[in-house]
Amino acid sequence: MDNENTQDLITIACLQFEPRFGDVAGNVDRTIAMIERAADQGAQIVVLPELANTGYIFRSRSEAFRLAEAVPDGPTSKAWAEVAARRGLIVVAGINEREGDQLFNSALIAGPSGILGVYRKLHLWGDENLWFEPGNLGVPVFATPYGRLGVAICYDGWFPEVFRLAAAQGADIVCVPTNWVPIPGQMEGRGPMANILHMAAAHSNSIVIACADRIGTERGQPFLGQSMIVGHTGWPIAGPASADTEEILMATLDSGAARRARNWNTFNHPLRDRRTDVYHATLGAEIRTGQAFSAATGRQQE
Amino acid sequence: MDNENTQDLITIACLQFEPRFGDVAGNVDRTIAMIERAADQGAQIVVLPELANTGYIFRSRSEAFRLAEAVPDGPTSKAWAEVAARRGLIVVAGINEREGDQLFNSALIAGPSGILGVYRKLHLWGDENLWFEPGNLGVPVFATPYGRLGVAICYDGWFPEVFRLAAAQGADIVCVPTNWVPIPGQMEGRGPMANILHMAAAHSNSIVIACADRIGTERGQPFLGQSMIVGHTGWPIAGPASADTEEILMATLDSGAARRARNWNTFNHPLRDRRTDVYHATLGAEIRTGQAFSAATGRQQE
Repeated sequence: MDNENTQDLITIACLQFEPRFGDVAGNVDRTIAMIERAADQGAQIVVLPELANTGYIFRSRSEAFRLAEAVPDGPTSKAWAEVAARRGLIVVAGINEREGDQLFNSALIAGPSGILGVYRKLHLWGDENLWFEPGNLGVPVFATPYGRLGVAICYDGWFPEVFRLAAAQGADIVCVPTNWVPIPGQMEGRGPMANILHMAAAHSNSIVIACADRIGTERGQPFLGQSMIVGHTGWPIAGPASADTEEILMATLDSGAARRARNWNTFNHPLRDRRTDVYHATLGAEIRTGQAFSAATGRQQE
Repeated sequence: MDNENTQDLITIACLQFEPRFGDVAGNVDRTIAMIERAADQGAQIVVLPELANTGYIFRSRSEAFRLAEAVPDGPTSKAWAEVAARRGLIVVAGINEREGDQLFNSALIAGPSGILGVYRKLHLWGDENLWFEPGNLGVPVFATPYGRLGVAICYDGWFPEVFRLAAAQGADIVCVPTNWVPIPGQMEGRGPMANILHMAAAHSNSIVIACADRIGTERGQPFLGQSMIVGHTGWPIAGPASADTEEILMATLDSGAARRARNWNTFNHPLRDRRTDVYHATLGAEIRTGQAFSAATGRQQE
């Protein structure tokens, strides 16, 4: 039976936050205070920015290393897990993660029953390549009381593959801790291109995407703010937020709507319509030849 | 040597056109007249809408079959090839293609030296599934005097895989003959989501995307117009056009700019940064198990 009237309402909060570089204890205290306020307003899923516990602009690997922590045994993980358990919500928050001698630009996923896992940023931006290892845990999807969650961090959002792989594994909501920075050619008074990318990804997968950006200028680097929660149609249902103020951005949605809406008509469903035969054949040629290859003509090109 | 001053200027025209259903000879004549006007204005690449020779709303397969033609031997192909040769330009135009007893929703690519090939729509929308075969020529990239061209048709644009595969094979410009229709949840006075999708695809691949949409209402079905040419930064460089008027939309660009701009910084390039290791591993699981699979946890999900 297909009862269109069933629904579970979920409230998501994106915390647009400004970390103070290097003040891990202070940052964690301030994120806890914001999480508490979001919980008071009914939030069940709370998303914090990328590297929310340390700040972003490291000047050396040793500095990044000194500020990193293990997951789940470090103090930041414990504090976020404690508030998630106490308030009965999901926290998805960016953390500078150390495992042995490796650092990862990660997101902790903590829930009412404890830490669910960690996502490690797959696509590193700029000097992150000097401090962090590329993510080695794939595109995980986490089962939670409030739906199936995927995670992407900042530059991951430039790769539609990430959202597609999360959706193909059943993700209802992709949480995006981020530190968006200005990129040449993107602004022209028209808002961040990042907003456009995440609207497109939400629409073309019929998923919800919750982007929590930071604000402020750190060691000369400005960040864009303009956090948003995008509904499964691709239009923002909360935000974009301001470019320069800490804010709690909230939206309440029917958890079943995105899955139902994916049946676009008698014939079409954006995940089932994928031509994996063609994609894999073309990607296979890419792998075999180590270079670009025209599937139709058989001609190799640059 | 890396001389930033070299450039080849290319002028692209998107012809926002209204076919009259079933009037193939009349439609082709009117497209030729528009192509001539675009050529007079300096166009080197001309894009026409999807199914520009026949119209879109077939009521039966036999009707679609009766209106279909072979490529390159049918009269529509010959007419478009003739104007392309005579005016020295590339024509990318939607055609109802017949091959034996099969029909394809195709785009003809004709150039100064003859017909370069055909693209067959990979992802069929709605009742197209009753008339057409899914495209069987993959994601071809065509070498032309004005750069390397990929093609996508309408609903193909909902699949970022198509633009990625074209870009990975070296496409500079993806031409999009389209017949965008309103989709529930997409409008709300904010323009077509299709515009957002193609802006995201242009930006995240650093390619130019030229979308030529039709206008008008055919057999009760309205179309959206709002054709546009998107630059490699993701922002429109021409359009969006009107929703209801035939227009020639033109843009001139440096053919080398998109390729150069892909080097975003010392570390980043949107095509080279792809984590094909992760994508293929996850896709491999999808293929092996026939269902969704969480790469990180090993847990299978719905």
